[in-house]
Amino acid sequence: MVAVSAAQPRIQLLQTPTAPAWVEQAIAHLDTVLLDHSHCERKAAGVALNLMCRYPSSEKLVRALTAIAQEELSHFELVNQWLERRQVSLRPLPAPPYGTGLSKQIRREEPGRMLDSLLVAALIEARSHERLGLLAAHCPEPELAQFYRNLMASEARHYGAYWVLATTYFDRETVNARLAELSAVESTLLLTLHPEPRVHS
Amino acid sequence: MVAVSAAQPRIQLLQTPTAPAWVEQAIAHLDTVLLDHSHCERKAAGVALNLMCRYPSSEKLVRALTAIAQEELSHFELVNQWLERRQVSLRPLPAPPYGTGLSKQIRREEPGRMLDSLLVAALIEARSHERLGLLAAHCPEPELAQFYRNLMASEARHYGAYWVLATTYFDRETVNARLAELSAVESTLLLTLHPEPRVHS
Repeated sequence: MVAVSAAQPRIQLLQTPTAPAWVEQAIAHLDTVLLDHSHCERKAAGVALNLMCRYPSSEKLVRALTAIAQEELSHFELVNQWLERRQVSLRPLPAPPYGTGLSKQIRREEPGRMLDSLLVAALIEARSHERLGLLAAHCPEPELAQFYRNLMASEARHYGAYWVLATTYFDRETVNARLAELSAVESTLLLTLHPEPRVHS
Repeated sequence: MVAVSAAQPRIQLLQTPTAPAWVEQAIAHLDTVLLDHSHCERKAAGVALNLMCRYPSSEKLVRALTAIAQEELSHFELVNQWLERRQVSLRPLPAPPYGTGLSKQIRREEPGRMLDSLLVAALIEARSHERLGLLAAHCPEPELAQFYRNLMASEARHYGAYWVLATTYFDRETVNARLAELSAVESTLLLTLHPEPRVHS
């Protein structure tokens, strides 16, 4: 468990809400979105693990990200169980431009690299949280909708944890200024709906 | 839990046992070995996750390695709790030549790349298992010795899981022939004791 959930109600990371067109696209392609969701959970575990590897002396970061990586892996497992139940085989899916578009914003030099990595992860988690909520609200299959609702309860902690880590290693003004820039990019990346149904299309 | 433990009693992956000099070196530098052990657990989670990412359509592999990655992360957490208790700060440690020496043996083209990756992971897990057992047997601090004994019970499954995956995707003769080559390299890499105390020095 990530012990930073208290900070969440005050965090408003996303500049613009998801457009209704995404909800329509996702609901019309639930299996593909579920398969993409599986890849997202695995990649999210990888992001946490890579950061733990890059900053091995940062104890608070290592502790928080170990918990996040574990939770992402357990979600990966749950999503894969849903895929199996729906007889959707695991297979690669080309990623939408969202993740690469955000990663390009990460500066190469420290300490900017650390701040940007934490904030980009926070934004992706915040957007995932929002979209799982939309799936929970609009999915016409009650059991699957309930699954998304259950995931949200723990997903909600992740973007808070990344944001708290950013404010642990950087002063609040620096964090807020960079967050404003990155969240503007994040919203712009989603202005045009990606033609392939994805969690971040 | 990795559901392949039944195959283990028949697996003898290592060609030569660890030399007594390693035990002496490790017991004389318990804190450093514990810190290195922390890095090993995190890296082992990374190896499992990378393979899941490289072979996303291989359902059995994905399932077994998700369980392994989760277990490695939980061991990482346990080792870090021991480091905290002993007031050893997390910090990077230069790796011994063992891991790089084994990785160099992994062929770049498929399907050899997959077979070699699974067998190299199996060998590293088998050697780790053997060495945790030596620490459990020789550590003069009873609680730490008990910790190593506890870890071994689950670590024992990992090399079995990698070996079973190899025989799932490749025929037994191919696996045994390549294992003989790789385990010879593995033993050779440990012939000379690395001057820095490490799990794989």
